[in-house]
Amino acid sequence: MTFLTTQCFLTYAGFQDVHVMIFIGFGFLMTFLQRYGFSSVGFNFLIAAFSLQWATLMQGLLHGLHDGKIAIGVESMINADFCTGSVLISFGAVLGKTSPLQLLIMAIFEVTLFAVNEFILLSLLGTRDAGGSMTIHTFGAYFGLMVTRILYRPNLDKSKHKNSSVYNSDLFAMIGTIYLWMFWPSFNSAITEHGDPQHRTAMNTYYSLAACTLSTYAMSALTAHDGKLDMVHIQNAALAGGVAAGTAGEMMLTPFGSMIVGFLAGIISVLGFKYLSPILEAKLKIQDTCGVHNLHGMPGILGAVVGAITSSVVPKEVYGNGLKKVFPDVANGVRDTSYQGAMQAASIAVTLGIALFGGLVVGFILKLPMLGAPHDNACFEDSIYWEVPGEEHHMEELTAVRTEEDEKLNS
Amino acid sequence: MTFLTTQCFLTYAGFQDVHVMIFIGFGFLMTFLQRYGFSSVGFNFLIAAFSLQWATLMQGLLHGLHDGKIAIGVESMINADFCTGSVLISFGAVLGKTSPLQLLIMAIFEVTLFAVNEFILLSLLGTRDAGGSMTIHTFGAYFGLMVTRILYRPNLDKSKHKNSSVYNSDLFAMIGTIYLWMFWPSFNSAITEHGDPQHRTAMNTYYSLAACTLSTYAMSALTAHDGKLDMVHIQNAALAGGVAAGTAGEMMLTPFGSMIVGFLAGIISVLGFKYLSPILEAKLKIQDTCGVHNLHGMPGILGAVVGAITSSVVPKEVYGNGLKKVFPDVANGVRDTSYQGAMQAASIAVTLGIALFGGLVVGFILKLPMLGAPHDNACFEDSIYWEVPGEEHHMEELTAVRTEEDEKLNS
Amino acid sequence: MTFLTTQCFLTYAGFQDVHVMIFIGFGFLMTFLQRYGFSSVGFNFLIAAFSLQWATLMQGLLHGLHDGKIAIGVESMINADFCTGSVLISFGAVLGKTSPLQLLIMAIFEVTLFAVNEFILLSLLGTRDAGGSMTIHTFGAYFGLMVTRILYRPNLDKSKHKNSSVYNSDLFAMIGTIYLWMFWPSFNSAITEHGDPQHRTAMNTYYSLAACTLSTYAMSALTAHDGKLDMVHIQNAALAGGVAAGTAGEMMLTPFGSMIVGFLAGIISVLGFKYLSPILEAKLKIQDTCGVHNLHGMPGILGAVVGAITSSVVPKEVYGNGLKKVFPDVANGVRDTSYQGAMQAASIAVTLGIALFGGLVVGFILKLPMLGAPHDNACFEDSIYWEVPGEEHHMEELTAVRTEEDEKLNS
Repeated sequence: MTFLTTQCFLTYAGFQDVHVMIFIGFGFLMTFLQRYGFSSVGFNFLIAAFSLQWATLMQGLLHGLHDGKIAIGVESMINADFCTGSVLISFGAVLGKTSPLQLLIMAIFEVTLFAVNEFILLSLLGTRDAGGSMTIHTFGAYFGLMVTRILYRPNLDKSKHKNSSVYNSDLFAMIGTIYLWMFWPSFNSAITEHGDPQHRTAMNTYYSLAACTLSTYAMSALTAHDGKLDMVHIQNAALAGGVAAGTAGEMMLTPFGSMIVGFLAGIISVLGFKYLSPILEAKLKIQDTCGVHNLHGMPGILGAVVGAITSSVVPKEVYGNGLKKVFPDVANGVRDTSYQGAMQAASIAVTLGIALFGGLVVGFILKLPMLGAPHDNACFEDSIYWEVPGEEHHMEELTAVRTEEDEKLNS
Repeated sequence: MTFLTTQCFLTYAGFQDVHVMIFIGFGFLMTFLQRYGFSSVGFNFLIAAFSLQWATLMQGLLHGLHDGKIAIGVESMINADFCTGSVLISFGAVLGKTSPLQLLIMAIFEVTLFAVNEFILLSLLGTRDAGGSMTIHTFGAYFGLMVTRILYRPNLDKSKHKNSSVYNSDLFAMIGTIYLWMFWPSFNSAITEHGDPQHRTAMNTYYSLAACTLSTYAMSALTAHDGKLDMVHIQNAALAGGVAAGTAGEMMLTPFGSMIVGFLAGIISVLGFKYLSPILEAKLKIQDTCGVHNLHGMPGILGAVVGAITSSVVPKEVYGNGLKKVFPDVANGVRDTSYQGAMQAASIAVTLGIALFGGLVVGFILKLPMLGAPHDNACFEDSIYWEVPGEEHHMEELTAVRTEEDEKLNS
Repeated sequence: MTFLTTQCFLTYAGFQDVHVMIFIGFGFLMTFLQRYGFSSVGFNFLIAAFSLQWATLMQGLLHGLHDGKIAIGVESMINADFCTGSVLISFGAVLGKTSPLQLLIMAIFEVTLFAVNEFILLSLLGTRDAGGSMTIHTFGAYFGLMVTRILYRPNLDKSKHKNSSVYNSDLFAMIGTIYLWMFWPSFNSAITEHGDPQHRTAMNTYYSLAACTLSTYAMSALTAHDGKLDMVHIQNAALAGGVAAGTAGEMMLTPFGSMIVGFLAGIISVLGFKYLSPILEAKLKIQDTCGVHNLHGMPGILGAVVGAITSSVVPKEVYGNGLKKVFPDVANGVRDTSYQGAMQAASIAVTLGIALFGGLVVGFILKLPMLGAPHDNACFEDSIYWEVPGEEHHMEELTAVRTEEDEKLNS
């Protein structure tokens, strides 16, 4: 490993914004569970600190070698945080149902597959995905959904009473939501080219988020039987606008285009939480604790589709001199805009394929009994893995960790 | 709308600091109420996401047109956040007593009037108000105070037991306070000219806040019968130094001058909370939930007066080459310093006039019964508007939303 | 005082990161105590706002004079925050056992001694200590440990039941931990030279922290009898990697070198919390509330030693043109690397000497009865100094503040 010392330090402030999203944003967003706050923020911290090191190696080997050495710098730190974000999205799907050891094993494989997928998309297919609608959100969500499908627990209702929030846990979660929301423009623009493209990406994301927040509140009230707002929607769906602007944010989406995309993302996300998630759990046996399908899955695909369309339909003249920064192959005459759009669309399929297949394999690996998964009646519960103050006797009646025998009984 | 792509990206870090103040700072500052945390941070989020879009349009139409299109860029985003801050100050005055619909209606009118007042001050009168002692704080506070006066509830003591904090709600509020305090130097300097003026503004604000914090602690202990500190003072009055440095921070106030201003602001603010607010409520029927008169009203006017005096008495030679950045009209010889000071003073009257008249009209509009104001015994209560975990039965005995009949009985 | 207006504004973003660490990081890190959250975040706020003003004067007089005036600017603001950090570390040692008046007296003396020690190290000995392993962490920790030794309370077990956390207080503390962790790269690099040295410092710190987090989690689980993680370790030891990279971070430590240092720091810190702290309390009568010896004391000395070794053993050729930025005396040929290393080592002794002697004297000053130390049965308790909501009657049975008579009985 060597420092890439020639690299500009200007992106450092962007890195810090992304870093806050990864550690505070994701960490506190998941503290909404009443008895899983230590694990949410603590395992988030552990997995992230591990993944960013592993991602530096994996991404470095695949597309960061300079003279045979891994070049590290502010940009590699941002990319490592991006990859980590993907792992944390998958963590959201299995939240409360896995041991730290399972999570670390998942991170090892997921980071590696993330780097492979990223390499195929960005380097082989020439896809643009500045904010990672595909590479981060779609990949992380469907990987995690497949893992949680494989780890399906038919008797999870034994822990049902703990799979919900209390007043203060919802407030802690709002810290995560607001930080993610505020810094998402920095996230999507962190590794775009300085100047106009970065400027445009940040602002497209900003307007998408603002519009998404309004549609989220409206849909949350409209879909409730008594017009009351649901914290689950506010904490999650209001962020879907950032996910959906992840690919096209860098492109000529325009402020109004961004608002339309964000508005749609909020609607889709709330509807997903309200109507689709219960169906996925009942019919497809997908127990998605944080509803990552609604925040990252569907909005990620929406963002990828918007990116493909925008690539195809916006004439290259609109970009002027900035074309080579956003679409270098189009600027060089190697491909036309419709070909670029086709590659963007193909990337969705590649991402879904790698995510679902990877999640399948990793899910079975995580079923290995020595990895210490919690018992069905001890899910969503800190005190299996943490010294919880004033609760020395609380866990005595619970069988904390699954044994091989339990596995047989349950499966 | 079009992107102002030639604009410098350097101010982006300042924008993010301001953004954090608007969403985390204001949002969590208001979570001090024991049963109104969801609404405080959640309605803050909703109103802010709405207001910044509406402000972009209103401010753009009034003073941001380039070739007939609204130019948007990092500076317009900062200005939209500033305008949003004003709405959130007014929200503080009516906190707990209004429905989200009322708040959105209030935001529509207040943003518009803010843009008008800002246009008169900055464009017509040539007033300087970098950190918005007048445009943001004085305007937002007196607008909100007039609205809450019009919405006066004689039977608000039915909800009195909920108009107070609990231990953890005070800690959540401190998150808001500390973020506002830390980033206030960025707030006041966000749209000042790069270089010396920005440098000076940030540091004047920093020293004003530091001195204000000391006088706040001292006054809080001195005015208590048993020498104990009051969280209300710490959460609010310690910020008055930022408000009071909002106009003159950009000028040659000097570090010691800033400290004196901040020190005074802390004293005024604590005395306001302790002695003036109860009188305003008893005599003038102003029910000011967050005490915005003490944090934004009086310190805002103090800041405006300090700005008028500093404009008048500091000789233009002191600014050297920097004069044209701070006082372009004085540098061009169009006006002298005393005339500039007079314009600054006149701006206070204009701001108060527009704020009070606007608040009067908007207050009556908000009395429309279909806007769903909460009943007197359901104020300061989340569960009217939110699904609150574990509290399904809590609200049954409360009549949640005012009906027309209630209105008659109460008025 | 005069503004140093020629100074670059580029470091402002770094200043804000450091500022967040001082006010949010330290403030919330100490909220882990169940009944001392108001005091933790509130006294942290008070002491910090006071210390940064006093530090500006003291540091300015000792090494910031320009033409007989104290030059202030973004760099002086960062240095004042650094000095404040040292005071807050000492606050951690005496947390819960001192009155605000005692803390302010302590701050007056500690800031002064900090500036003296800093002057001796940086200006007289030519020591490099960019992130303050010695000047900030070692100094603050051993000063505070000596103060708490002098203020030893044999009957502190009367407040034992309050010297622990509850569920939500641990979550509030994690806000502090995560902010300190995220922004530590900015802290260590805030006043290093722009360009490569700053770049290198930030990244060395980042990798040290990442590795430290992993060893902290591993050691926390390994040293527990049942494999459970302990929040005390996670909240504190995971940060030791930042402390330990404070001196050598600026030097050619390399990413792998940084990881080794961080990994060791995490191990030492957890072992300190688990085994050394109880011994220090039982044998040496050092009641170290936050365990600052484990987070700042030992990792600070480790960092200083690593800095001395790195200075000595890395050939000056490795730095190339950057040598004069990091080791100006070595670049000028005034001293060789081994002499530089010797000065670095000597600085540890000087720092320990000043810290321990200063803590001794200040400890006795703080024993003055009129300073209002809390009674043994009222330690770790907010309600002596704060209006605590809903707890009007809670403190009646406690004798709140020590009287002279109590002193005699206890001593």
